[in-house]
Amino acid sequence: MHATRPTLQITPAWQGQQHYLAVRTYSLALAAPLSAEDQCVQSMPDASPTKWHLAHTTWFFETMILRPHASGYRVFDPSFHYLFNSYYEALGPRHPRPQRGLLTRPALDEVLAYRRHVDDAMQQLLESADAALWSSIAPLLSLGLQHEQQHQELILTDILHALWCNPLLPAYQPEPEPLVCLVAQPKPLRWLAFEGGLADIGGQLPDDGFVFDNETPRHTALLHPYALADRLVSCGDFESFIADGGYHRAELWLSEGWARVQQENWQAPAYWLSSGDPRLAARTRHTGWHVFGLQGVKPLRPEEPVSQLSFYEACAYAEWAGARLPTEFEWEAACGTAGLTGMCDQVWQWTRSSYDPYPGFKPQPGVASEYNGKFMVGQLVLRGGSVATPPGHTRPSYRNFFPPATRWQFSGLRLAKDL
Amino acid sequence: MHATRPTLQITPAWQGQQHYLAVRTYSLALAAPLSAEDQCVQSMPDASPTKWHLAHTTWFFETMILRPHASGYRVFDPSFHYLFNSYYEALGPRHPRPQRGLLTRPALDEVLAYRRHVDDAMQQLLESADAALWSSIAPLLSLGLQHEQQHQELILTDILHALWCNPLLPAYQPEPEPLVCLVAQPKPLRWLAFEGGLADIGGQLPDDGFVFDNETPRHTALLHPYALADRLVSCGDFESFIADGGYHRAELWLSEGWARVQQENWQAPAYWLSSGDPRLAARTRHTGWHVFGLQGVKPLRPEEPVSQLSFYEACAYAEWAGARLPTEFEWEAACGTAGLTGMCDQVWQWTRSSYDPYPGFKPQPGVASEYNGKFMVGQLVLRGGSVATPPGHTRPSYRNFFPPATRWQFSGLRLAKDL
Amino acid sequence: MHATRPTLQITPAWQGQQHYLAVRTYSLALAAPLSAEDQCVQSMPDASPTKWHLAHTTWFFETMILRPHASGYRVFDPSFHYLFNSYYEALGPRHPRPQRGLLTRPALDEVLAYRRHVDDAMQQLLESADAALWSSIAPLLSLGLQHEQQHQELILTDILHALWCNPLLPAYQPEPEPLVCLVAQPKPLRWLAFEGGLADIGGQLPDDGFVFDNETPRHTALLHPYALADRLVSCGDFESFIADGGYHRAELWLSEGWARVQQENWQAPAYWLSSGDPRLAARTRHTGWHVFGLQGVKPLRPEEPVSQLSFYEACAYAEWAGARLPTEFEWEAACGTAGLTGMCDQVWQWTRSSYDPYPGFKPQPGVASEYNGKFMVGQLVLRGGSVATPPGHTRPSYRNFFPPATRWQFSGLRLAKDL
Amino acid sequence: MHATRPTLQITPAWQGQQHYLAVRTYSLALAAPLSAEDQCVQSMPDASPTKWHLAHTTWFFETMILRPHASGYRVFDPSFHYLFNSYYEALGPRHPRPQRGLLTRPALDEVLAYRRHVDDAMQQLLESADAALWSSIAPLLSLGLQHEQQHQELILTDILHALWCNPLLPAYQPEPEPLVCLVAQPKPLRWLAFEGGLADIGGQLPDDGFVFDNETPRHTALLHPYALADRLVSCGDFESFIADGGYHRAELWLSEGWARVQQENWQAPAYWLSSGDPRLAARTRHTGWHVFGLQGVKPLRPEEPVSQLSFYEACAYAEWAGARLPTEFEWEAACGTAGLTGMCDQVWQWTRSSYDPYPGFKPQPGVASEYNGKFMVGQLVLRGGSVATPPGHTRPSYRNFFPPATRWQFSGLRLAKDL
Repeated sequence: MHATRPTLQITPAWQGQQHYLAVRTYSLALAAPLSAEDQCVQSMPDASPTKWHLAHTTWFFETMILRPHASGYRVFDPSFHYLFNSYYEALGPRHPRPQRGLLTRPALDEVLAYRRHVDDAMQQLLESADAALWSSIAPLLSLGLQHEQQHQELILTDILHALWCNPLLPAYQPEPEPLVCLVAQPKPLRWLAFEGGLADIGGQLPDDGFVFDNETPRHTALLHPYALADRLVSCGDFESFIADGGYHRAELWLSEGWARVQQENWQAPAYWLSSGDPRLAARTRHTGWHVFGLQGVKPLRPEEPVSQLSFYEACAYAEWAGARLPTEFEWEAACGTAGLTGMCDQVWQWTRSSYDPYPGFKPQPGVASEYNGKFMVGQLVLRGGSVATPPGHTRPSYRNFFPPATRWQFSGLRLAKDL
Repeated sequence: MHATRPTLQITPAWQGQQHYLAVRTYSLALAAPLSAEDQCVQSMPDASPTKWHLAHTTWFFETMILRPHASGYRVFDPSFHYLFNSYYEALGPRHPRPQRGLLTRPALDEVLAYRRHVDDAMQQLLESADAALWSSIAPLLSLGLQHEQQHQELILTDILHALWCNPLLPAYQPEPEPLVCLVAQPKPLRWLAFEGGLADIGGQLPDDGFVFDNETPRHTALLHPYALADRLVSCGDFESFIADGGYHRAELWLSEGWARVQQENWQAPAYWLSSGDPRLAARTRHTGWHVFGLQGVKPLRPEEPVSQLSFYEACAYAEWAGARLPTEFEWEAACGTAGLTGMCDQVWQWTRSSYDPYPGFKPQPGVASEYNGKFMVGQLVLRGGSVATPPGHTRPSYRNFFPPATRWQFSGLRLAKDL
Repeated sequence: MHATRPTLQITPAWQGQQHYLAVRTYSLALAAPLSAEDQCVQSMPDASPTKWHLAHTTWFFETMILRPHASGYRVFDPSFHYLFNSYYEALGPRHPRPQRGLLTRPALDEVLAYRRHVDDAMQQLLESADAALWSSIAPLLSLGLQHEQQHQELILTDILHALWCNPLLPAYQPEPEPLVCLVAQPKPLRWLAFEGGLADIGGQLPDDGFVFDNETPRHTALLHPYALADRLVSCGDFESFIADGGYHRAELWLSEGWARVQQENWQAPAYWLSSGDPRLAARTRHTGWHVFGLQGVKPLRPEEPVSQLSFYEACAYAEWAGARLPTEFEWEAACGTAGLTGMCDQVWQWTRSSYDPYPGFKPQPGVASEYNGKFMVGQLVLRGGSVATPPGHTRPSYRNFFPPATRWQFSGLRLAKDL
Repeated sequence: MHATRPTLQITPAWQGQQHYLAVRTYSLALAAPLSAEDQCVQSMPDASPTKWHLAHTTWFFETMILRPHASGYRVFDPSFHYLFNSYYEALGPRHPRPQRGLLTRPALDEVLAYRRHVDDAMQQLLESADAALWSSIAPLLSLGLQHEQQHQELILTDILHALWCNPLLPAYQPEPEPLVCLVAQPKPLRWLAFEGGLADIGGQLPDDGFVFDNETPRHTALLHPYALADRLVSCGDFESFIADGGYHRAELWLSEGWARVQQENWQAPAYWLSSGDPRLAARTRHTGWHVFGLQGVKPLRPEEPVSQLSFYEACAYAEWAGARLPTEFEWEAACGTAGLTGMCDQVWQWTRSSYDPYPGFKPQPGVASEYNGKFMVGQLVLRGGSVATPPGHTRPSYRNFFPPATRWQFSGLRLAKDL
């Protein structure tokens, strides 16, 4: 259908189309190492099957863009509206979240066909969009792509949890065993001082390109003098915390965190295997801690950032280290400062900020008003980005959020202190 | 490897080999309509994935026969011992039952390879078995095949439950829509009288061919005069019970049953869909009750036996009908009487007998001692057989058993009364 | 009001009146050592507060006898019907069982006033009853008194559980510390043989004085030759089971029992305290097992019958001892045989009989039809009687019943074996 | 023992003594309308028995002041340390919170004796304290008294919950039925505008008399222009919300709140009774909503502030009203402004602020470091004070906090909006 386009005009719609293609393809690439069985499994209510992510992100485009804006669009399968709505109350009843793993039908092949059907319709719509239509759908296209990128990170964290639940500990993407494994020690931590004062926080549409509504409105916040560690807390650091009895000293923990440590018998970050673990015995003669990740089980590398940490563990570590977590405002105001490493590309960093609305916050209008605002209670803000975050998705004002006991994300910490 | 066998001798070992082949092939035939995704899913802790059934029955032969008796046998994969042991405490720790659905690995293909590996080794063992070896392994072979047949029934009941949990209500095996559906009314129920007195109950090895240890020892029981209904309770009968308020009249129910009715809001047998069910709206214009089964959703057929019933519902129905359930002894003593229909080929029949040990019961020796005896508390006996029972598997002395709230089996009832 | 009775006629109604007085007074005597706080507490959903028992047994007479049969009877407080109905569905909604301990009002004094009110009305009714009325109410009177006696045993077992939950381990009725405590070893166990054959089981109204409907109809049962231990299993016996790893050997346990052992970390009978228990440290220098009972904490006495045992523990012990539990029919047929000690006066004895209906069983008519029959699933029969059973309450045909995990009753065991 | 004091010196220690007496007596006055049974009951894990509050506050003085500072002090009962420690991990193991209601022993009388014992020792200590000792114990005395006042409010809210769980709905303190009940409508709500800008937030020891550590350090916060409603949201206002379908409109609720509404079937504030409630039928002919409170059941008074509201309900109401909750900083900065009514004397007011630490927050040193800081996650701040708050206890910088689903406190709301 491109045959009739003699000269290429780099219009915003054309750029949107390219962006759409790139993001959509990336989702498939993430699913590629997984079998149909892998893509169907749900290992806990908070996680979703890969297949469900692939379908739900597609449903988002179908529901938010094609149905209202693509005249003559034929819905792929009317039952998918019930199956792949995530949490939009305004869009009617939906399949219960904890039962997503029961959906062996539609089969993976059918979901892939669904993606192709929607992708074709989206391409057609974008190609034929005039300026008026484009201005209507452009914000929804951005939102849908950002949405899909969020699910791309979840595809990785959710499948990693499922593989962790399998006693065989299969790797998502095995890497060749290195001939020599150089163990580096973490660099000594250095403190960078910040004066505080009034700081611009958040983003604003359209000045800042895309931002989520929870990052708005941009506003001024008052910061008191503080310092941030120049690097993330590393696995080696965290090993010292454990060796010093960190998981057995109530005084280091928030009360809820300590209760969780007892109830679930936490002894280390979620995906660490201790020397005596029977699952290790069969696969290695190395002793010492091992860590399970996207490449499978590997000996702990002291210099790597600690990950899969709950907020409780992050707080307890900071307490033990005589420091604290930064607030999300301190983090954002410092972001970009020379010398701060690992801000956005290794692990999300728990902050000491509850996920509250910004002054003057209003959810975006329309169906997507349920996107962020209704979750603003009982969660903590994480800032940064991780190895699982798709390229280009994050930014300094980005507010990620999870409940404090969450341990299946690429979540770690950076220390802060008062000056 | 068959090349050197010039003439065929119909020995017991050869017969065993044929039986082995037939049973093992039947399992694969049952799995054939299911995708890899279907075969991986576990819809509740009591049900298991098809793939797990296929592997576990294979593990049984490997563990009980090949490892102790086939010299030089190479275990297919050492980790499978942990993954596919069901409940044998004497064989060490095992994968937790509620997490069988998380085993996306080993993949289905690998499990099928496991079956072929064990089947080859079994064939070889049976072909080469001398009389001494045969006499050692023959009872284990029988047990292993009976065991696999039990899992064949569970393959069907478990996948049916999983498909029922899917809002699309896919059929396990769709049948062509009949051009005309003749609705027959159930035949009037007639009572057959039995004198009671002393009756031989149970079976005995080796007199009775194969029997499970829970059917032994054969012993005498004393029966009081009773009558049995000549046919099963039908869907039409049960519809009358519902129409008469059966699910809302506490006086018909055992106390535990009534509690369950309230808690889980039971209104009909487990897989019935009422006229207003939204899952019906999309697929049919028929009104009235529909029933979900192996062939998918069909309008209720009044003459078919009611199925997927808990013991509680069976008891409440009997109470409503002014009758009672038979004891397992009454059922067994009557089995084979001319005029009794549907004894072993339609639905298992709940009895009013708790699953207690027979006088003089001893579990079979060895590892298989855990097969039956350790479950003799808190369960009720069902007698007969069902449409899901593999041909030749059941017999009059067969004791099936489930907890009283069980609703995913092909379980119904036959009325009895005192004379 | 007795002033006008010049000569005493020992009529059945007068006897009933005396019996009524005796039973009702005994309940108060059992409550006497307890404070109002003690009488209000509910330590688990299965147990009830003493005050609730005192009120509920009173409600039973008010509801079953006074309201239908005492013309002009004034109900004490209409709200008590809701508060003190236990489980009679036919009598309407009632206060949820797990919330009985929240009823700080009515105060204990008010409940005692309720008892006096009903007792006065009952006395008046019984004094004035003519033959016709007497014949109507006599069966209900018997039932009401037997009912109250059942609750008398529960008053003791329920408060004992509550006191056990108190870290101070207060004694229900402290006894003076003996100057010298002679430790006797249990007598060697001897086996008494029984031929079996046809046995009369159960009781029949009115031939047998009072029997509950679950003991009827009297019928013939067939027994196979068996032997019973002449004495109960003792604490000393059970100590040997523990010392031999009884709580750590899966092969001794029913599957459900073993699961419970793991989940709740059972290590000994419910009210045993091991040497290192911190609650012991403060109160004694004795070492070795201690047992908590109505007289508080005392060093284990090897010759005393073991008590507060679940069915699972009883079965595991019997398995370990190379024996089994008797059926309820074996127990009943043997009861009264010379040489059998501790049949009805020390602990209830778990049998290997599920609580199923007798052949021909019909619940008694009327409201009391809910008394027994609706509980006939998922429970095991205990036979005998205990130190907590009120004098004269039990009999050889008496069927006590509890779920198999029950551990707060005076429940132990006697061994049996096949001959 | 006061006989030898000839002239009265109004020293700080003497003032402390008077304050001690007044606060301690007030606790007993709050308990006075309650029976021993009432004082023993625990209606949910989050609530504690009155008797436990009376003992725990006493334990606080014994542990924090008498044991370290009163030479020769004899501990009343060593076992009380285990029984009446609330949550201080540093002080060793303690009785599990959900089982406080099982403590029928020590009896109420014994707890009252405990109070007298500690009060005597405290009086003696305070009378004999020299300046050095006084300066050591003065902060602990303040803390202990503030602590006891916090428990005074809980005595009321906890017993009110227990009485609410009783179907008789007894009044804590019945008031005479008024001859005429004048129903006033709530005054029209007016908005008071605030400029925002930099505001001093929090308090500082010793400048501000007593403040809890969670109110420190005093610091500057930046506020954006806002308005506050001059009065609390009233029962009449909330009735309109309900009448407008407030509990059935997902779009008004936070996601977690909506889930709770569904799960627990919320239809109105926690202690409201709708017209058809069977508990009303027996006691009144009035129709319309009734509200249960310390004086028992009364017809809803439209002008009274709505109370016993969760954060979720407060947020949903604000959303419905086109407004929002104030932040805790907005509330504090406005406190004291003329025209704002009901700030500190009617109901606590939920704010839109999570209970996070202030910039520079450090828990107080010593055992009391566990007092506040370890609860700083998952809770929301309430500001103000209520009818149940003891006189003199609250202040503008006071930070009360509860989880968002809490519904048994005197908690309501005041509206705010952006300008």
